[in-house]
Amino acid sequence: MTSYSQLNTSQRILMGPGPSDAHPRVLQAMATPLIGHLDPEFVEIMDEVKSMVQQTFQTENYLTFVVSAPGSAGMETCLVNLLEPGDEALICIHGVFGGRMAEIADRCGAKVIKVEAPWGEPIDPEQVRLALETCTPKIVAIVHAETSTGVLQPLEEIGRMAHDAGALFMVDAVTSYCGVPLKVDEWGIDAIYSGTQKCLSAPPGLSPVSFSDRAVKALENRKTKVQSWFLDLSLVKNYWGGAKRAYHHTAPVSAVFALREALRIVLEEGLENRFIRHRENHELLATKLAGLGMEFLVDPDYRLPNLNAVRIPEGVDDALVRNRLLNDYNIEIGGGLGKFAGKVWRIGLMGESSTPNHVNMLVSALEEIIDPNLIHNGKASSVSTYG
Amino acid sequence: MTSYSQLNTSQRILMGPGPSDAHPRVLQAMATPLIGHLDPEFVEIMDEVKSMVQQTFQTENYLTFVVSAPGSAGMETCLVNLLEPGDEALICIHGVFGGRMAEIADRCGAKVIKVEAPWGEPIDPEQVRLALETCTPKIVAIVHAETSTGVLQPLEEIGRMAHDAGALFMVDAVTSYCGVPLKVDEWGIDAIYSGTQKCLSAPPGLSPVSFSDRAVKALENRKTKVQSWFLDLSLVKNYWGGAKRAYHHTAPVSAVFALREALRIVLEEGLENRFIRHRENHELLATKLAGLGMEFLVDPDYRLPNLNAVRIPEGVDDALVRNRLLNDYNIEIGGGLGKFAGKVWRIGLMGESSTPNHVNMLVSALEEIIDPNLIHNGKASSVSTYG
Repeated sequence: MTSYSQLNTSQRILMGPGPSDAHPRVLQAMATPLIGHLDPEFVEIMDEVKSMVQQTFQTENYLTFVVSAPGSAGMETCLVNLLEPGDEALICIHGVFGGRMAEIADRCGAKVIKVEAPWGEPIDPEQVRLALETCTPKIVAIVHAETSTGVLQPLEEIGRMAHDAGALFMVDAVTSYCGVPLKVDEWGIDAIYSGTQKCLSAPPGLSPVSFSDRAVKALENRKTKVQSWFLDLSLVKNYWGGAKRAYHHTAPVSAVFALREALRIVLEEGLENRFIRHRENHELLATKLAGLGMEFLVDPDYRLPNLNAVRIPEGVDDALVRNRLLNDYNIEIGGGLGKFAGKVWRIGLMGESSTPNHVNMLVSALEEIIDPNLIHNGKASSVSTYG
Repeated sequence: MTSYSQLNTSQRILMGPGPSDAHPRVLQAMATPLIGHLDPEFVEIMDEVKSMVQQTFQTENYLTFVVSAPGSAGMETCLVNLLEPGDEALICIHGVFGGRMAEIADRCGAKVIKVEAPWGEPIDPEQVRLALETCTPKIVAIVHAETSTGVLQPLEEIGRMAHDAGALFMVDAVTSYCGVPLKVDEWGIDAIYSGTQKCLSAPPGLSPVSFSDRAVKALENRKTKVQSWFLDLSLVKNYWGGAKRAYHHTAPVSAVFALREALRIVLEEGLENRFIRHRENHELLATKLAGLGMEFLVDPDYRLPNLNAVRIPEGVDDALVRNRLLNDYNIEIGGGLGKFAGKVWRIGLMGESSTPNHVNMLVSALEEIIDPNLIHNGKASSVSTYG
């Protein structure tokens, strides 16, 4: 029988698409001795978490809770609860995660109408308007911050169009939540999900979710059972709310402790201050990368400050640079997903990883790793061979 | 804006149906700074976890992995991957969790054939044999350790019957795993899931799962897509195995760290030693409770040593006793589920919570809380009014 050594991981600096660096207070909360998932103290903690999720989503939605699984399960929670077989679902796709929504909606038996934009660009509301002339969808779904492309999608106009068409407006806020302005109630968002490991800087594993009263009404009017038992909100809601908490599943107690602490840190900093910090560190990075002759993928008007998609300079070896960043500097950045593999780096400045020090560490390391001829003048010639 | 105080939980002693007390080394692992979910170091950790799950399940199944969500999601993973609409599923029900399997199988569009035993008793293999004469199910599913009743279900004969009928044999091992003997390969189990917060003594949030080659073949022969994207093994398996790990979702990195440490502790102790320890502490508890005149729900032949279902003595107030245990002694035990609510206590002696000290603390506290007239002679009269 093989024996395994003590856990011994490197001290990574996390500047990819998530997880981001966790605050020591959050890590400490993870190590809190366990209490029962129906302990009155835990019920109180769930109530506090719910209230802090409401504050950070800027919503008063009663049905606000945390899915006991990562962001992808949050996405599936929204879709399996809102959609029934035969429903039309208008899904906006401008990257990997819009595509994932369409895939899940299809598995719900919905008829999916796709509105697509080239990767690296936002969805034009006009496209949605035209599509809405051809269908009467139950939901219009869109990704606020496309983690695969670094696009920040304006939401308000599309939300109004969805409502005018009688549809519910569903938003993926995995990478935007707690990093850029996000006003669930003011923007008319009916269903939203996020993750914990991006701008919240908690460990991955949970998905904060919120449903408007309109969305709740749609749940109540379902004709069929939700196909997932684990994600069925008619059951989950009795665990996360109500006078008497009904056992549904065993919540990940430690992860909820950590989420509570991460939310506390967000509210201590203040949402507005946090957004400004993310914006400023993005600008610092943009300035420094411009100095190296490196280019952003996305038009400045739609650039996500917390996830920076940057074109890999011509002639630079993607894998070689990322391996050296990881092995020599302990810095993780993200490679391109899908059609951007090998062409784009995704640099996360999220939560605790959004500091001037992070920007400086990364830019200095890139300067040391990449042949200056390939970057300072933006011209390709050959890959640096040192290292 | 409300402000929230530092996390300040009581030092609970966890003797309910889970979570159990976590080892300090496991809690410490939870607080390890994060690394990326595709970091080569994390991939190595996943491989180690997979290998240790194989060892503890006593299987060589290649498709052995960990679902990034609690045990209920492990249950759903097995069912949504194995079942397609129209399939027959023979589900054995002798408590809450068998009922849950039937509910999920129904949501998969399967035709559910139920074989039921009274709560507190095991399923008689003869019942399964008779049922198999009336149907040709794709799976025969059963709970090994019914957390709601404290029954340990013998598996081997039913497994043979399932195979003879051409069915896959699926087992819920949430509460048995690492606490009582469980031999996946030797017993012909084709699909199994467990949880981390029972006899493994890791925090809740993950579900170790394993599929036999026969089950894998069934997955490959599916005609329809798995209805859940998040739990679709055709996607998940490329993240947990294979030469190049494909991104599927962001794994709960910290929880995997903790699971690794919990598995290491199990293997250090040795499975056999661990089973003996669970058995011995159960016997100690049984002896001491008998001394108080308290009775077990389940026949000694089928008693689960790690989750002890005990009849609440007549005249004793369930809520009052459990509240005093929790508030005055910091001891959590479980109440009855479903039809056993108010009638049964469920005393967990699982993992780190299976020690003579745990038994002694609980029994002494019960002696102090409950009116001696109600227990020592097993006769009901009135509830103790002190406290």
